[in-house]
Amino acid sequence: MNFRSDNEAPVNPIIMQAIIDANQGYDESYGYDKYSEALTEEFKQLFGCWCEVIPLATGTAANSLAIALAAPPYGSAFCFHRSHLNADECGAPEFFSDGVKLIGIDGENGKIDLDKLENTLANSGVHGEHECLPSVISITQSTEAGTIYSSEEMDRLLEIKNKYGLYLHIDGARIANAVAALNQPIAEMTWKKGVDLLSFGATKNGAMMAEALVIFNPKIIGDIKRRRKRAGHLISKMRYVSAQLLAYLKDHLWLKLANHANSQAQYFYESLKNSHKFVYPVQANEAFLQLPISVISELRVKGFEFHIWPGSNDIIRLVFSHSTKKDDVTNLIETIVNLCK
Amino acid sequence: MNFRSDNEAPVNPIIMQAIIDANQGYDESYGYDKYSEALTEEFKQLFGCWCEVIPLATGTAANSLAIALAAPPYGSAFCFHRSHLNADECGAPEFFSDGVKLIGIDGENGKIDLDKLENTLANSGVHGEHECLPSVISITQSTEAGTIYSSEEMDRLLEIKNKYGLYLHIDGARIANAVAALNQPIAEMTWKKGVDLLSFGATKNGAMMAEALVIFNPKIIGDIKRRRKRAGHLISKMRYVSAQLLAYLKDHLWLKLANHANSQAQYFYESLKNSHKFVYPVQANEAFLQLPISVISELRVKGFEFHIWPGSNDIIRLVFSHSTKKDDVTNLIETIVNLCK
Amino acid sequence: MNFRSDNEAPVNPIIMQAIIDANQGYDESYGYDKYSEALTEEFKQLFGCWCEVIPLATGTAANSLAIALAAPPYGSAFCFHRSHLNADECGAPEFFSDGVKLIGIDGENGKIDLDKLENTLANSGVHGEHECLPSVISITQSTEAGTIYSSEEMDRLLEIKNKYGLYLHIDGARIANAVAALNQPIAEMTWKKGVDLLSFGATKNGAMMAEALVIFNPKIIGDIKRRRKRAGHLISKMRYVSAQLLAYLKDHLWLKLANHANSQAQYFYESLKNSHKFVYPVQANEAFLQLPISVISELRVKGFEFHIWPGSNDIIRLVFSHSTKKDDVTNLIETIVNLCK
Amino acid sequence: MNFRSDNEAPVNPIIMQAIIDANQGYDESYGYDKYSEALTEEFKQLFGCWCEVIPLATGTAANSLAIALAAPPYGSAFCFHRSHLNADECGAPEFFSDGVKLIGIDGENGKIDLDKLENTLANSGVHGEHECLPSVISITQSTEAGTIYSSEEMDRLLEIKNKYGLYLHIDGARIANAVAALNQPIAEMTWKKGVDLLSFGATKNGAMMAEALVIFNPKIIGDIKRRRKRAGHLISKMRYVSAQLLAYLKDHLWLKLANHANSQAQYFYESLKNSHKFVYPVQANEAFLQLPISVISELRVKGFEFHIWPGSNDIIRLVFSHSTKKDDVTNLIETIVNLCK
Repeated sequence: MNFRSDNEAPVNPIIMQAIIDANQGYDESYGYDKYSEALTEEFKQLFGCWCEVIPLATGTAANSLAIALAAPPYGSAFCFHRSHLNADECGAPEFFSDGVKLIGIDGENGKIDLDKLENTLANSGVHGEHECLPSVISITQSTEAGTIYSSEEMDRLLEIKNKYGLYLHIDGARIANAVAALNQPIAEMTWKKGVDLLSFGATKNGAMMAEALVIFNPKIIGDIKRRRKRAGHLISKMRYVSAQLLAYLKDHLWLKLANHANSQAQYFYESLKNSHKFVYPVQANEAFLQLPISVISELRVKGFEFHIWPGSNDIIRLVFSHSTKKDDVTNLIETIVNLCK
Repeated sequence: MNFRSDNEAPVNPIIMQAIIDANQGYDESYGYDKYSEALTEEFKQLFGCWCEVIPLATGTAANSLAIALAAPPYGSAFCFHRSHLNADECGAPEFFSDGVKLIGIDGENGKIDLDKLENTLANSGVHGEHECLPSVISITQSTEAGTIYSSEEMDRLLEIKNKYGLYLHIDGARIANAVAALNQPIAEMTWKKGVDLLSFGATKNGAMMAEALVIFNPKIIGDIKRRRKRAGHLISKMRYVSAQLLAYLKDHLWLKLANHANSQAQYFYESLKNSHKFVYPVQANEAFLQLPISVISELRVKGFEFHIWPGSNDIIRLVFSHSTKKDDVTNLIETIVNLCK
Repeated sequence: MNFRSDNEAPVNPIIMQAIIDANQGYDESYGYDKYSEALTEEFKQLFGCWCEVIPLATGTAANSLAIALAAPPYGSAFCFHRSHLNADECGAPEFFSDGVKLIGIDGENGKIDLDKLENTLANSGVHGEHECLPSVISITQSTEAGTIYSSEEMDRLLEIKNKYGLYLHIDGARIANAVAALNQPIAEMTWKKGVDLLSFGATKNGAMMAEALVIFNPKIIGDIKRRRKRAGHLISKMRYVSAQLLAYLKDHLWLKLANHANSQAQYFYESLKNSHKFVYPVQANEAFLQLPISVISELRVKGFEFHIWPGSNDIIRLVFSHSTKKDDVTNLIETIVNLCK
Repeated sequence: MNFRSDNEAPVNPIIMQAIIDANQGYDESYGYDKYSEALTEEFKQLFGCWCEVIPLATGTAANSLAIALAAPPYGSAFCFHRSHLNADECGAPEFFSDGVKLIGIDGENGKIDLDKLENTLANSGVHGEHECLPSVISITQSTEAGTIYSSEEMDRLLEIKNKYGLYLHIDGARIANAVAALNQPIAEMTWKKGVDLLSFGATKNGAMMAEALVIFNPKIIGDIKRRRKRAGHLISKMRYVSAQLLAYLKDHLWLKLANHANSQAQYFYESLKNSHKFVYPVQANEAFLQLPISVISELRVKGFEFHIWPGSNDIIRLVFSHSTKKDDVTNLIETIVNLCK
């Protein structure tokens, strides 16, 4: 029973069928196929606004291209200090952007402390050209801690971004889980809050390898297609990526899958929150639970798979995915309850 | 009837089935799945030697990572002046390698003139640190012109490489077509000829998106896995790439598919070589044919798809793929013959 | 009366005379002149060990080349969070190294908290290739806060560096002030403590534009001369840089100048330490003094020049240089005392 | 008697005196000194137009920053295939620009063949994002072959640049020699011909280490000051660079020095052109002369210093500088005549 990562889940059958269906004869390569050409229109309808859509195979590429578009090589990007962007991409944002400096801001619940962000920005630029140029804020939504920036926090980010003349990027590897949780139109959580670039993830939520970099701001610098190509991310048979994204969007599949995952997390959380310590509020599809070390060992013996959170020895991360079975969650809950008796 | 590119061909059904079969439940992410773990062993058996294998989604990534491994940022790489590496990657090799200078060498039949290469190398290094450090030779096999470096030419490359202390890389986007054409063990054409790095392509020859960077030389500098990650090319659900490669290797599927493609090209070439001008010898799965402009127009009207070669207006490139039907080739031959009467 | 920066001080007359003396007729360019050729031997005698010496015009170049030598593009460098390297080079280390991630560690008195450093390193590498490779520690000696890493702290750094297999670099823009203050042979403070690379600064301490990157560890990766050239730092008429360095080393001029600067700082500190608050201990040639805002204004009116420290409004930085006149310091002390009465 | 390089010549006494004069007390650092502040105005007067002026210590930095300003990382720059930019900077332009591809065009007399340039550009862009974006043309004036682009050639370059929407850069390491030779106002040869960026060299023509990057086009992308800083080229005591440039411009010193150098070259050329073979026309301060190998050896024995041109064994390059003595030239001429009898 795998609660280790939504990256380890299989591909949703509807998406797999879309891949199979795309395999009919010849179609143009490098994004001129009929699936890729339909993609932008679908995204425009989803968001209700102009946007440019770049299909990609990895979230690292989406995030890193976003930073490269939003900041010059001598710029700086502000993000949560332990965000994927800063801690888990092996320097990809720096690489794609030819040297942008990531400035990590800490905060509670896996989110940037917005006062600290503003304070850092207020003290930036004192040294002129001796400092990198503040260029972009990047947040993760939902966060790596399974939490969500609220509408009010997004308003505050918009205010800060405008005050300091920055771009705003969302690493949306799990944006579907955030949208499902907040139960708002995705437009309200993105471009209407001043978001300029969104890494719209699908892989973790049921696709095989499909992400879309969505650009809302037509003033974003540079030539995204050449940047994608020179990074080796122009997939020759792109139809197989775009077909995944089309299926993912169709009939709100993406939201249905995210709702399923979130529901499992909520079920787990509600069942144990009174008896156990959760490190962060469970707002999306992840739970961070503190347990006695002996219980953790026993869970593994019984076939439950999960990560012990780095830096701790008694906190486990549980990820609930589009394909998590409720019975497995029930089993997990009951096992924890029994082991903790 | 598409003769435009093997990149526009569909996925071979056996490979598609392998993808479907890999979609059973959870498996580890980031290359620790059972497919990826089996891959290195399969490649070792294929080549009969030690090697490190890095599955990737694009050939651009494979080639560019190879250059980055084989040359320091202040190095230079020698390649055919119109090779994909130099002319069609939008600077990807320079990007991945943080600035390696590509030095294009011209030659006949889409191949580096080896005398010119040696002469260029002999005159390199005169200016010491004012010049980039000659570091790697990269050839394409089979070439972008549909030709093949012979065993004797490979011997000469080995000699040059050793004389100047360089690495040797093959862009093998169509290596299968070369192996099928030469009818030699792939080992004889690669590491036994001193090849240090091979971009082993599968996408053009029937896969969906799957290439393998094969490293034969354990002394190759650097940490390939970190380089892959920071380039955004560590696919999270890598099993779906590795499964393609396993199916591609199994029961010599890769050679069968390449033989099919090559045979169609040969059939076409043999049928027309006495009556028409081919720009390059047809040695693999591509033909470059000179035709009257009016004939080219008529062919298009009749539904044949192909590229007119950039820089010309009367040379068409025809690519024969793993899924090209012999009837379509016959149709094409007869149409050309009729139009040229 | 300028206490703003040692960068604003003039060139010491002995060094200026050396520049004039070097201007006799023709000499070879690009570092093959007789001054540059003599340089390595002088540095070997200074340090009593093998070393490679690279003359440069700026400290930014020296520091950034050092990081580029000590870390691969996918590596990370650990430094004080507000060090020049991290906060005042506009991303130069990232640029020269093609993307190394700087990881800032905070601490007291302008120095890395060594427990935090060790703790950070102990938690690094958990994510394998998802993380940059810990590669080098860089400290500033004397620090930007005018403090000095003690011999014991250097021992601890050596221990940490060995434990985690890292290189150790010193940004020695003011290394002369540190050596003068500790009154130890420079060898004891550098390579004998495991320092692999030293940016040996001269500009702040009396030269016109002259720094030397000193490499003690022959295993340091890469080709420093090509790296220098491609960064545009191979000065064609290098004799005029090398001549500065030779004069700076001759007859211990560098130590005499640093001793003068330090003495002025000590005189200032001793005169006021009982009556005023110094933010950091005054150990080299800088003092950070808290004063009433009105006093700060008055000092300026009276012609004293200095920086108000960014982030504060009542802390001034005073830098004492090789050319600071004792009378001016006396004047400053007395003015402060009077204004604070 | 040194005819090897103008880089080996000493500093002109007037410029040396300016450096000495600048050494009076404290002045602001990092370009806020009174010399640097006066510089832009002087250059505006020289050119009779708006310009931004960036003092630098090396020509490599000036050229490479220019390319970085004029081309995005995915751009391409067109230059003479054996230009300094392409052949002697160890990849500096690629480094500063984060990967711009240099496309070398050959031609006669050390100059780009403008028909070939136009033809190359006409065939660029066929592959869209698979190709780097043509961005800038860079010429050397006077060239590395001691020749000069004529006013008509500059007109043609302007036409090409406009047709293809490119920027135009001059590597003016020896621009003074070109201006002196053409005897036209420098404005006529630069911005009035559509030049967007000029590397205005002084070092080879009498300065110690001083070049100015002059930007005529206010639309040039990016933040030149941050680019300079992160490349380590913001000299802290910049007054000593700016003072050189001010002295160099004052009373037309730059033209006087260049005229002297050119005159020596012309004297040499006129004396021998009827009896000897010059490889290129002698238009500035360099001569490339073919001589019997035995004569070359004899010249060296007699104390004449020069380079044998790489790739040949019987062509010598003679460079005449601001400090070349006419007697030495006479001596050289007579010695050659005698040895060739």
